[in-house]
Amino acid sequence: MSLPLIDVHTHMYLPRYVALLRQRTRVPRIVSRAGGDRLVILPDEENDTSTSAGRPIGGEFHEVRRKLAFMDKHGIAVSVVSSANPWIDFVEPDEAPALAAQLNDDLEAICAASAGRLLGFGVLALQRPETCAAELKRIAGHPHMRGVIIGSAGRGRGLDDPDFEPIWKAAADGGLFVFIHPHYGVGQNLFPDTGHAMMLALGFTFETSIAVALLILRGVLERHPGLKLLIAHAGGTLPYLAGRLDSCVKNDISKDFGLPRPPSHYLRQCWYDSIAYHGPALAALTAFADPARIMFGTDHPFFRPHVADDVLDKTTWPAPEENLQALSSLSAEQQKAIAYANGLAAFAISLP
Amino acid sequence: MSLPLIDVHTHMYLPRYVALLRQRTRVPRIVSRAGGDRLVILPDEENDTSTSAGRPIGGEFHEVRRKLAFMDKHGIAVSVVSSANPWIDFVEPDEAPALAAQLNDDLEAICAASAGRLLGFGVLALQRPETCAAELKRIAGHPHMRGVIIGSAGRGRGLDDPDFEPIWKAAADGGLFVFIHPHYGVGQNLFPDTGHAMMLALGFTFETSIAVALLILRGVLERHPGLKLLIAHAGGTLPYLAGRLDSCVKNDISKDFGLPRPPSHYLRQCWYDSIAYHGPALAALTAFADPARIMFGTDHPFFRPHVADDVLDKTTWPAPEENLQALSSLSAEQQKAIAYANGLAAFAISLP
Repeated sequence: MSLPLIDVHTHMYLPRYVALLRQRTRVPRIVSRAGGDRLVILPDEENDTSTSAGRPIGGEFHEVRRKLAFMDKHGIAVSVVSSANPWIDFVEPDEAPALAAQLNDDLEAICAASAGRLLGFGVLALQRPETCAAELKRIAGHPHMRGVIIGSAGRGRGLDDPDFEPIWKAAADGGLFVFIHPHYGVGQNLFPDTGHAMMLALGFTFETSIAVALLILRGVLERHPGLKLLIAHAGGTLPYLAGRLDSCVKNDISKDFGLPRPPSHYLRQCWYDSIAYHGPALAALTAFADPARIMFGTDHPFFRPHVADDVLDKTTWPAPEENLQALSSLSAEQQKAIAYANGLAAFAISLP
Repeated sequence: MSLPLIDVHTHMYLPRYVALLRQRTRVPRIVSRAGGDRLVILPDEENDTSTSAGRPIGGEFHEVRRKLAFMDKHGIAVSVVSSANPWIDFVEPDEAPALAAQLNDDLEAICAASAGRLLGFGVLALQRPETCAAELKRIAGHPHMRGVIIGSAGRGRGLDDPDFEPIWKAAADGGLFVFIHPHYGVGQNLFPDTGHAMMLALGFTFETSIAVALLILRGVLERHPGLKLLIAHAGGTLPYLAGRLDSCVKNDISKDFGLPRPPSHYLRQCWYDSIAYHGPALAALTAFADPARIMFGTDHPFFRPHVADDVLDKTTWPAPEENLQALSSLSAEQQKAIAYANGLAAFAISLP
């Protein structure tokens, strides 16, 4: 199967952001080593002072031409590029709103110069929630921006923080996507000495799942049915757990969330990328979600192949291959919808 | 569809255990209230001193005749009964081995008197791991016992605790199942004021998933390929996340677990109940797991219908109905396998 692809989950650390990471002495930061620069971003890397802390970072993380080379190699027609975790969550509150606006303008300029290959998800200064609605309105006027990406932890009190209510309204009013993405992880204290594997496989997906479940239980999607939430990594675990969540909410005599419908109703209003790395998850996702709201993603430039930098652009990356392979047991119509048709419609894309 | 059912996930608090819970002043315990007894068992209930702490507990939790009435009402031919969480995890280490043996003998006697309707999963004194292999050997000699149930948290250091190695060997040698079940939860600090719903839907399934993933990554299933793990609640989240776990392990340059095969290989050696409450999860589970290793369960007597005690035995419970309904999109062969054929084979059951 060879399908044109729209990639809705693909990251860049913008040059202005990379410069900021290079100046820092605490995570997140970029450290120069004899073997090349290293990106140290995960919370559990804070205390790792070894020379192998973090992971190699090259131009594939911040150069537009490398993103386009990756897209060409993998048959990706259009990418909806998002800033990568942890976004600007660590920035001083007084500085965050201006930085958000600068990064959003940077991304718009990059997309505008891409001859139709790139669209963008911007960032918000969640540490100053009162500024976010105005920034969303401003972003809505940028022709290549399609929404924002925000971390599942919000500003530390969860995405159900009441101060975020104007964000949901402004995003819904502006027709903008809010891409919910993990960074902080859940449960790390239970899996010491497991490298990044458990954190990325379980900690990340649990974080996303808790955040979105709380958004639903606190009524955000009931109050804003037009809000377009895109949930990272095939929805974390929620397409699998949706029935259990319904049952647990319905049977809990100790708490009434006052929702007129079960949580799964609101989960079906959401969008999902198809980044699950195996067919069984896609079987659940396609059985659960709105068929028009599942879209292909790669998570580039993470999970970089273990090859030298000078051959990287000519190398096939495993993640997009595995995620394409995972579609193979679906019908031709489902494959087409996920690979590109849903993305074209959701992001108003005209193929270049 | 009307199928005879084998229920592999169904609990009892044995009378000896109920008496113990009544004597206690801290969770887990049973509290007498004007409106009836209440069972207070979850860790987050420790500080809840209200009269509505916990949940109502009646004879359906500990009387054999009520278990049989439930089975008759729902077409369940045979139940493999397990003690319920938190088992004997809270008992003083010096007292735990003898109590485990007494409870296992109690359960064997109950099953022996049931005219073929009941089989059992016993308990182990995990706080004294050096005693467990002998108790497993003893249990293997009980004609109605089919294994043990243990909590995903082990004795507090995870199931990958090296001191548990003799448990896995003894269970594998004796052909006994080890039923992995959650109790302590993961992530609770992130979802305050959510009753039990988030804890049971997400906290429980995350706990199980972490525990089993660690068992696999530490090589337990590689060393003991004959070990029969039954993973509660449709495997928590693992059938959905198995592909992501494989990918994250393969791409983690910071940690080599030294496993000759990807984690999903070992997950396919495991057994799963079908307790997911919706069809999409079953679509993933049946696409992922060995078709002979998925078995029906009810989680009785939890999720009790909100009716008076005197009509409870005549009431249809929602959980088994929802979990039967979730099978309806599967093939007739798959439904038969999950409803009873796999259970008959796995537990060497002759229908009465």
